[in-house]
Amino acid sequence: MKSTDPDAELEEMPEAECLELLDQHSLGRVAVVIDGQPQIFPVNHAMSDRIIAFRTGSGTKLSHAPGSKVCFEIDEYDSSTGVGWSVMVQGVAVDATESFDDVSWATRAAAPWPLAPGKKPFWIGIEPSKITGRRFRRKA
Amino acid sequence: MKSTDPDAELEEMPEAECLELLDQHSLGRVAVVIDGQPQIFPVNHAMSDRIIAFRTGSGTKLSHAPGSKVCFEIDEYDSSTGVGWSVMVQGVAVDATESFDDVSWATRAAAPWPLAPGKKPFWIGIEPSKITGRRFRRKA
Repeated sequence: MKSTDPDAELEEMPEAECLELLDQHSLGRVAVVIDGQPQIFPVNHAMSDRIIAFRTGSGTKLSHAPGSKVCFEIDEYDSSTGVGWSVMVQGVAVDATESFDDVSWATRAAAPWPLAPGKKPFWIGIEPSKITGRRFRRKA
Repeated sequence: MKSTDPDAELEEMPEAECLELLDQHSLGRVAVVIDGQPQIFPVNHAMSDRIIAFRTGSGTKLSHAPGSKVCFEIDEYDSSTGVGWSVMVQGVAVDATESFDDVSWATRAAAPWPLAPGKKPFWIGIEPSKITGRRFRRKA
């Protein structure tokens, strides 16, 4: 079974590398919890120092993310090289649209480019409390 | 701004199409909630009827998913066609490793192939309570 492949290696990535990957990519997923039920939404993000910034409309994310614990994740698997990795950010979200705290300023300094249609006038920032990442390489 | 592009269209996908996409793909993300904090993990999944099946080791997912509300998500964006979509499944997870209920049988009938290394002797099934999907197309 592939799952017990002894030739594959799994390693933890240092935080600096996780931040670099977050900065290099622009499509991740944010999870919010609504009445105990997690929900996952793809979002286009951008980094501003350690803050993850994305824009949104007046929907589920805006209603439930600010002030709550959220998760942000990016991952990739390249079948040609056999390398897979994922980065997970745990933290609290902030409605940064009009606030003047440091996180809000940082959020609005980022330049996320939403690909999905619809007006997205609100800015959400995620201040990380924990950043973790893993990488594996499948040997040929 | 791209976010307000009037030429992009967003549409809800019917459940049948969501299930088809879930069946055609093998890499998604599962979100579990631990002390109010959502966490997102990439997993290789397979479908068995409406059940989402994946395998795992003795870690966070096995400790916190079974018996709890979880979320499973897949998404894709093709920059050459400008088409993006995502499917979200909300439901309750079941440790299907040794149980004899219908969900567990269905889970073990699926054939997920974990790409990540490490022993994954446990089977988790997700019985959907809600399946939703969205697609957008950016016009050229």
